[in-house]
Amino acid sequence: MKVDDTIDTFNSLVKRRGFIWGPSPEIYGGLAGFYSYGPAGMTLKNNILSLFRRELRYFGFGEVECPTIMPEIVWSASGHLDRFIDPVLKCKKCSTLYRVDKFLQENLPNLMIDGLSFNEMEELIKKHELTCPKCDTNFSKIEEYNLMLKTSVGNNVTAYLRPETATTTYLLFNRLDQDARKQYPIRVFQYGKAYRNEISPRQGVLRMRAFDQFELQMFISKHQEMEFDDYEEIKNNKLPLLDWKLQENGIDIPNSLSLSEAISNKILKKPAYAYCLYIGYYLTKILGIPEKSIRFRQHSLNERAHYADDAWDLEIKTRQFGWVEICGIHDRTDYDLRRHAEYSKQNFEISMGSDPNIKEVPQVLEIAFGIDRIVYTLLETAFNVEEGRIVLKLHPTLSPNTVAVFPLVRNKEKIRSLALKVHRELLKNRVGSFFDAAGSIGKRYRRQDELGTKWCITIDYESLDDNTVTIRERDSMNQIRIGISDLPQTIQNKKIE
Amino acid sequence: MKVDDTIDTFNSLVKRRGFIWGPSPEIYGGLAGFYSYGPAGMTLKNNILSLFRRELRYFGFGEVECPTIMPEIVWSASGHLDRFIDPVLKCKKCSTLYRVDKFLQENLPNLMIDGLSFNEMEELIKKHELTCPKCDTNFSKIEEYNLMLKTSVGNNVTAYLRPETATTTYLLFNRLDQDARKQYPIRVFQYGKAYRNEISPRQGVLRMRAFDQFELQMFISKHQEMEFDDYEEIKNNKLPLLDWKLQENGIDIPNSLSLSEAISNKILKKPAYAYCLYIGYYLTKILGIPEKSIRFRQHSLNERAHYADDAWDLEIKTRQFGWVEICGIHDRTDYDLRRHAEYSKQNFEISMGSDPNIKEVPQVLEIAFGIDRIVYTLLETAFNVEEGRIVLKLHPTLSPNTVAVFPLVRNKEKIRSLALKVHRELLKNRVGSFFDAAGSIGKRYRRQDELGTKWCITIDYESLDDNTVTIRERDSMNQIRIGISDLPQTIQNKKIE
Repeated sequence: MKVDDTIDTFNSLVKRRGFIWGPSPEIYGGLAGFYSYGPAGMTLKNNILSLFRRELRYFGFGEVECPTIMPEIVWSASGHLDRFIDPVLKCKKCSTLYRVDKFLQENLPNLMIDGLSFNEMEELIKKHELTCPKCDTNFSKIEEYNLMLKTSVGNNVTAYLRPETATTTYLLFNRLDQDARKQYPIRVFQYGKAYRNEISPRQGVLRMRAFDQFELQMFISKHQEMEFDDYEEIKNNKLPLLDWKLQENGIDIPNSLSLSEAISNKILKKPAYAYCLYIGYYLTKILGIPEKSIRFRQHSLNERAHYADDAWDLEIKTRQFGWVEICGIHDRTDYDLRRHAEYSKQNFEISMGSDPNIKEVPQVLEIAFGIDRIVYTLLETAFNVEEGRIVLKLHPTLSPNTVAVFPLVRNKEKIRSLALKVHRELLKNRVGSFFDAAGSIGKRYRRQDELGTKWCITIDYESLDDNTVTIRERDSMNQIRIGISDLPQTIQNKKIE
Repeated sequence: MKVDDTIDTFNSLVKRRGFIWGPSPEIYGGLAGFYSYGPAGMTLKNNILSLFRRELRYFGFGEVECPTIMPEIVWSASGHLDRFIDPVLKCKKCSTLYRVDKFLQENLPNLMIDGLSFNEMEELIKKHELTCPKCDTNFSKIEEYNLMLKTSVGNNVTAYLRPETATTTYLLFNRLDQDARKQYPIRVFQYGKAYRNEISPRQGVLRMRAFDQFELQMFISKHQEMEFDDYEEIKNNKLPLLDWKLQENGIDIPNSLSLSEAISNKILKKPAYAYCLYIGYYLTKILGIPEKSIRFRQHSLNERAHYADDAWDLEIKTRQFGWVEICGIHDRTDYDLRRHAEYSKQNFEISMGSDPNIKEVPQVLEIAFGIDRIVYTLLETAFNVEEGRIVLKLHPTLSPNTVAVFPLVRNKEKIRSLALKVHRELLKNRVGSFFDAAGSIGKRYRRQDELGTKWCITIDYESLDDNTVTIRERDSMNQIRIGISDLPQTIQNKKIE
C-alpha cells in the first residue's frame, strides 16, 4: 500500500490507531463538537498531564479541582452571563443560526468585520442583501447567543456548565490563602472539562464544545508583580515574541527577545507576567515541539477578553490549520476577585507584604492551556512519512507505549511466556510496555511506528538459550541484541529528565 | 490544644488541611452535592489514579475517555431515560420534594419499604396521615423524578449529562473491537465525571451530584466467561463474601472463601466474573485498606440495576457512615450492546472464538469504582489520634507529600538554599517532596503528620558542614542522621512495588 505524506494520511491515522474518534457518539451520527479519546490518545494525554504535574510541582504549583457546574450567581459575578456571547443571525424560515461576524467575513472577505457594532453589521446585511444560504430567506435581527450550557439542579436551581476552570479556582481564594500560610504568590492550577456551546463547531478537536483545560493561576501583589524573585532566574531566556505593534505593521515573524529585553523595551510590563510566558514556553518545549513552530502573539485591544489587561497566545504552527493557540497567558488584574467579593459579600483584601496594615485584593496572572489542542498539535508535529513508512516521532516518555514486546511466533508457548515475563518486568520498572503477539513481525513494527513506540523488543528462539533479545529503534530502524537484564536500565536512561 | 479522637476532629481535618472543601461554591453558600478538592486531596486522588492506571496496564486494560454529555437517544437506548428514576412527593404548598422511599422509611421505621409499589406507598401516606414536615400540607401524587441532568446543545438538541461512564464506553464498541484485533476479552476502562441530580443529597462526599467514576469493562464471549485463562492464576485467592442467602438469614459477617470454592459452591456462577471481583479486591488492598474493613455484599434481586444479572458491592467499613460501597461489580450480560445495536441499527455480532461462523453479541462484565468514596474511606481509615497527635497513616506512594524538606531557620540564606536544593533533587528523582520554611519545626512536623507525610527532612547548621540531614519517620517519630546523597534511594526503596 502506498502511503502519501498528506494531511489525509494523518487524519486517517488519528482514527485508525485509536488516538481520537468522533464526533461522538459515532454510532448515533455524532453530536458536533464532542470527541472521544481511544486507548492510544488517552495514554498520550495522560503522559502529557503527568509530565506537566511533575514540572509544576517543581515550580511550586498545587492542584485543585472544582465542580464543572456552578449556580447562576457565579456567572453573573464573573461577567460570563453578560459578556460570554456571540452575535447570531437566525433564519426566519428554517431557524438555522449563523454567527454574524463569521458569516459576514465569509460573504464579504474584503471588509474588516472585527470590532463592528450590531447596528453596523445589520446595515451590511441590508446593503448587500444577504439571506440564509440554506433557504434564501431574510434574517431576524441580530441576537445575543450565550455560549454557556444551561442546566437545572435539584428543585429548579438554574446552573451553568463552566466555560472555563479559572473562575471556579478563584472561588476557592480564601481557602487557598489559608492553605498557603503567607507564602505569596499563591500558585495553583486546575485541570478539567470546560464547555462552550459553539454555534457551528468546525476544525475538529480544535473547536470542541466540551474540552480539557489546564489553567494555572498566580494570586500576587502589585508589588510582587514588579519585583519577583523567580523572574531573576529565568529573565535571560529568549522567547519568540510577536507583539501587537509588529502585527499592526503587517509583520508575522516574531522577534527572538530575552525576557529582560522585552521588559526594558516595554513590550512586557511586568516581570511576574514575563515569568508566566516563560512557564508556558518551558512546558511546551519539554513536549518536544520544535522551537521554529512556536510563537507568542499579543492580543490587540479588541481581541482581549473582558477581564484582561494584557494577553498573549502561545501558538503552534500546524499544517492543517495554520497557527493554532494552545495556551493563553492573561493578566486578569484584580477583576475576578473584586467581582466575587462584591457578589458574595466576602472580603478578599489581604496583607501580602511585610506591613500587616497594607491590604489589597490580589492580582491574578493566568496561564491557560488547552490539552486537546496540545494532543492535536503534538501528533501533527510528530507525524512523518519516510520512504512509505508512517512514523510518529514522539518522545518515549509521551508516546502511548515506550516499548512493545513481541514473541516471534504466536503459538510457541515457551517464547510467548518469556515475552510476557519481559513485558511484565518492564511494567514493574515503570516502563510503559505493550505486549503484541498478533500478526507478522513486519506488521507489528509498522503498527508501533504509527503509535510512536520508540523501541520494539522481539523474543525469538535464541532468547530461550541465551536470555538476549532483539531491540529495534523506531527512527533508525537499527536492531541490536541485548541481554534481558539490561533492558529496563537501557530504556530508562533515555527518558525525559 | 487538646485533640480528641472523634469524627468531628476528622471532619475538621479534611477541610483544614485542604483535602475536600464544600459544598461548593462555599462563598456563595454552596450547592448541595458539589465539592472541591484542595491541593492535598487532589494530590492524594492523583496518586490513587496513577497507581490504578499502572496496575491496570499490567492486567491488560486500555483507557478511553468519552464526552460527559450525550444526546437523548443514547439514554433511551441505555434505559436510563425510563428507569433511572426516583419516586418523589411534592408538597402542594411549598413545593419541597421528598424521595418517597427515604421519607417513608424515616417516618415509619418499623415497616419494610423496599420493593413497595407506588400505590402501596400512597396508601401508607394516607393511612398514617403524613404531611410535609416543613409546612404540614398534603402531598400531590407520587411522581417520577429522573436523576439525569438535562441540557440543550447547539440549536435546541436535547442532551443529558451522563449518569455513568459505562454507557459512553459501550458506544465505542466497534472501534474498540477493531483496536483489539481479536484479542478477547476486550479490556477497557474510563475515568471521569458522572452526574446524578439527587433530590436531597446528604452524607457529604458519599452522595455527590457530580462525582468521579472509574469504571472497567470487559467485553467477553459466553464461552470465555466460563473458561477464562486469567482466572486460573487467581482462583486460590480468598475474598470476604457476604452472599444474598447469608443476608437473608440475618448474617452480616462475610465468609472468607477462595474464588474456586465460591464457584463450586455456586455462590458465583462465572469464573470471569470471579476474576472481576478479584481485580476490585486487589486494587482496594494495594491502597492499604485493612482486610478486616473490606467485604463483598451481593445484591438481592430487588436491589439490582435494570441491566444486571448479578451484582456485588465492595464495601469498606467506616466510622461515620457504616459500610460504604466503593465499587460495584456487575454482570451486565449483553443488555447494553443489544439495546445500542437496536437503537443505532449497528451490528454488534462478532466472532470471538476459533470458528469465524459463530457470531455473538459480547457479554459485558463491569467493575465500577467511585473515586471520591475511595478518597473518603482511605482518609478515614488512615486517620489516627495518638497521644494528642493527629497522624494520617497513608502509604507514602499515596500521601500528598512523600517527604517534606525544612530549613531549620527561615532567614539563614545558606540553610534555605541547601534545603531548596535537596527538595529539588528529590523532585527530579520522582519523589513527591514539599518545601516548608514557615513556622517552628514542631508545627511543621504536626502539619505534615496531618497530611500523612512519611518522612520529614530537616537541614540545619551541621548540614552545611558535613552534608547530612535529620530524617524523621512519621509513625515512630524516630529521627536519624543520613547523608544527602543517600536520600532518594532510601525513600524510593520504600514505595509500593
